[in-house]
Amino acid sequence: MAKKEEFVKDIADIDEDFAKWYTDIVIKADLADYADTKGCIAIKPYGFAIWENIKDIADKLFKETGIKNVYFPLLIPESLLQKEKDHVEGFAPEVAFVTEAGGEKLDEKLCIRPTSETVFSTLYSKWLKSWRDLPMEYNQWCSVLRWEKETRPFLRSREFLWQEGHTIHETKEEAMKRTLKMLEIYASIVEDYLAIPVLRGKKTEKEKFSGAEETYTIETLTRDGRALQSGTSHYFGQNFTKPFEVKFQNRDGNEEYAYQTSWGISTRLIGALIMAHGDNRGLKIPPKVAPIQVRIIPIAMHKEGVLEKVHELKTRLQKDFRVEVDDRDNVTPGFKFNDCELKGIPLRIEMGPRDIENNECILVRRDTIEKITVKLDNINEEVKNILEDIQNNMFNICKQRLQEKTQIAKTMEEFEEKINTNQGYIKAMWCGNVECEDKIKERTNAHSRCIPFEQETLSDTCVCCGKKAKYMVVWGRQY
Amino acid sequence: MAKKEEFVKDIADIDEDFAKWYTDIVIKADLADYADTKGCIAIKPYGFAIWENIKDIADKLFKETGIKNVYFPLLIPESLLQKEKDHVEGFAPEVAFVTEAGGEKLDEKLCIRPTSETVFSTLYSKWLKSWRDLPMEYNQWCSVLRWEKETRPFLRSREFLWQEGHTIHETKEEAMKRTLKMLEIYASIVEDYLAIPVLRGKKTEKEKFSGAEETYTIETLTRDGRALQSGTSHYFGQNFTKPFEVKFQNRDGNEEYAYQTSWGISTRLIGALIMAHGDNRGLKIPPKVAPIQVRIIPIAMHKEGVLEKVHELKTRLQKDFRVEVDDRDNVTPGFKFNDCELKGIPLRIEMGPRDIENNECILVRRDTIEKITVKLDNINEEVKNILEDIQNNMFNICKQRLQEKTQIAKTMEEFEEKINTNQGYIKAMWCGNVECEDKIKERTNAHSRCIPFEQETLSDTCVCCGKKAKYMVVWGRQY
Repeated sequence: MAKKEEFVKDIADIDEDFAKWYTDIVIKADLADYADTKGCIAIKPYGFAIWENIKDIADKLFKETGIKNVYFPLLIPESLLQKEKDHVEGFAPEVAFVTEAGGEKLDEKLCIRPTSETVFSTLYSKWLKSWRDLPMEYNQWCSVLRWEKETRPFLRSREFLWQEGHTIHETKEEAMKRTLKMLEIYASIVEDYLAIPVLRGKKTEKEKFSGAEETYTIETLTRDGRALQSGTSHYFGQNFTKPFEVKFQNRDGNEEYAYQTSWGISTRLIGALIMAHGDNRGLKIPPKVAPIQVRIIPIAMHKEGVLEKVHELKTRLQKDFRVEVDDRDNVTPGFKFNDCELKGIPLRIEMGPRDIENNECILVRRDTIEKITVKLDNINEEVKNILEDIQNNMFNICKQRLQEKTQIAKTMEEFEEKINTNQGYIKAMWCGNVECEDKIKERTNAHSRCIPFEQETLSDTCVCCGKKAKYMVVWGRQY
Repeated sequence: MAKKEEFVKDIADIDEDFAKWYTDIVIKADLADYADTKGCIAIKPYGFAIWENIKDIADKLFKETGIKNVYFPLLIPESLLQKEKDHVEGFAPEVAFVTEAGGEKLDEKLCIRPTSETVFSTLYSKWLKSWRDLPMEYNQWCSVLRWEKETRPFLRSREFLWQEGHTIHETKEEAMKRTLKMLEIYASIVEDYLAIPVLRGKKTEKEKFSGAEETYTIETLTRDGRALQSGTSHYFGQNFTKPFEVKFQNRDGNEEYAYQTSWGISTRLIGALIMAHGDNRGLKIPPKVAPIQVRIIPIAMHKEGVLEKVHELKTRLQKDFRVEVDDRDNVTPGFKFNDCELKGIPLRIEMGPRDIENNECILVRRDTIEKITVKLDNINEEVKNILEDIQNNMFNICKQRLQEKTQIAKTMEEFEEKINTNQGYIKAMWCGNVECEDKIKERTNAHSRCIPFEQETLSDTCVCCGKKAKYMVVWGRQY
């Protein structure tokens, strides 16, 4: 990319150092910054506006299916956390504890929620009496804390924002239906709004959530071929409702434990978005979640009438789009173009005296850098169509990459060679034993991503041990 | 109230035990419940939906004036908190500390934010370079923790939800303008949406925020005549920007410290709403923030066509209103009426076979319990007008109470007698000395609420010491 030096001097080359490119983008595109609290980030207005858009979309989709929002406490007494054995084992190493408050040492340590199954279960057990009270389907938007050793903005932060939905049901079937319904909603958010194709499937025993019967996942692929777990939905059966005594009188008058689910997506999706769509010019935000969909840059803005016309155009566009004018007088148009590209604004409009004379303006697409001169008469319609096309094009580019980076391996040699040369997903048959899963991990550094819903029979034998295969699994290295 | 026994047996009488009535309402109207974490509450769907409505209204008003949302860390290193002397003295006794995390003892304690002036100041100092970067006007919706000894749901909880806006400016004047602008927005939220008249003014030195130059407040009055601080806006001058080195190159090329503000409203507003509007039948929610504005109750719902017609009506109404049908088949219409009143739903509609025959339905206002029979033809228009009337009527009732419960005192005897017999606000002249403020508090248990913007000269002398008066102050007992 010959022009690179001109505008993004301080961003690492995406093909040379993807990890550094990523953090450079986070900082330079004004999404977030490091905070004084180690491992935590400060989400800045531009980054937070992406999250607000994702949140609004998700919240609406949740509510359409009957989910209601609540807010439950941040602090969990240590004894509550310990009620479900697998759960506490999974989370204990990552928990932060409050031990002093109000000038005194506490009798019982309080943990900051790493997730709230224990809190929801405790409250549900208090409220649930009869089958008539079911389902209870609550969700909260909040922050959680997990004391990670290695952190990376948005992808893995000690504190992060998410939503956690927790539901209880009368029957196993209904709970499983809700579990899978939420996975479909997550897939829709990521595919239809974030323009990233997902792989849907079930986690293996080893990779499932601590305390769950089954964990379902949507996985996305980064530009450099790493896998990202981007949303999970868990079926708990009665694993929590039994120790927490979440029981009800069923239709036959007998006491029964409820069937439970939980599911979450987080600000990690912003990381997925950056890693799926960015390039050497900077970020690329899909129009549907872009805080600014169109930015207008006046050319020769000191000339009479230019600023006036530009603001007129803004007024017309803002009826349908999130639009702003960059009328800074201390930087050049060239600087503004670069800034626009760095921030990943889907469409920029250039408008100067000659354009005005011709009743035109120039549209520049962020995805292709294509320049299109259009008449002002139908400008809203033109912009609408182009934004739709950008959204689709961004999805298709990722889809094509996904196909190119998904390979089949029938032997471990093939597995190793393919993942080393082309990164990405490896499809391979698996016997179902954790020993093979561990061996594959050791040898290739690839985790099982999931047992995809869409199964194929690549061969009859496990890629690792050669014994009879049970599933086709997708494997990949992860961030 | 003769009928009371029939429907709200388990709620304390509002005139006999207001405090118990309040917590009964919180629990029985399904707003919130106590959680296992002492001093914290679980906000249930119905209570949270009120907060979502308040949040949406406020967020829109903020953004219209240029405020942008962010999210900054929950945990603050202890050393940061200590940088501003008054601030740390004010908050230290209420802070909760994380001392262990990830299985290890931390080198430096981390406090859970009681408020985020220190975090915003640290980040602003990192980002601010030139006057061109100003103003920075950021806000976050989050939870904060203050280790209160005595708690009461919504009014004073160890953890609560709020928004905290923090802005920095080039000049003192601009910062002061923002401070006062936010107070006006808060006043509008409380008066125009929550239907509660407010008293606007400045806090005395004693009552102002720890670290502020000036604190401005809106105060509301409960039904039993207690004062509630319902929103505050602070002007900090350079009190934080100096120790935190939030400085910029000004237009003259010199280094200067920015001028700062902060402002907040919280879930306490739900407490204010309950205490301003409720009665012995339960909650009364102003239509503009009511999660359910209209609930339709079918009469003789087993009769042919009733449920169908009721759902038809719902479909028509939901174009304009938040409406639901109570079609439970295991409770009587009478139970449903009571439930509707307990939950404070502004308008209920009763509709049975005879009403359907006459092309009518019966509207029952929550504020007056008045029954109105209306034709179905213009039902949306009718409902719209009645909801508007309910909103206005609720405001006017509070306004009248405020007038009745605001009294003037020219001597301490008068002060004491009036506040003991009629509770509420006492207007009295004050010399400006904290000694008199303390004495008044000691003798009457009333705090200074504020120095109202609208000053009157009741006399020339301080109600307490008899020396020359400086201000008219409004005093009141508080929750």
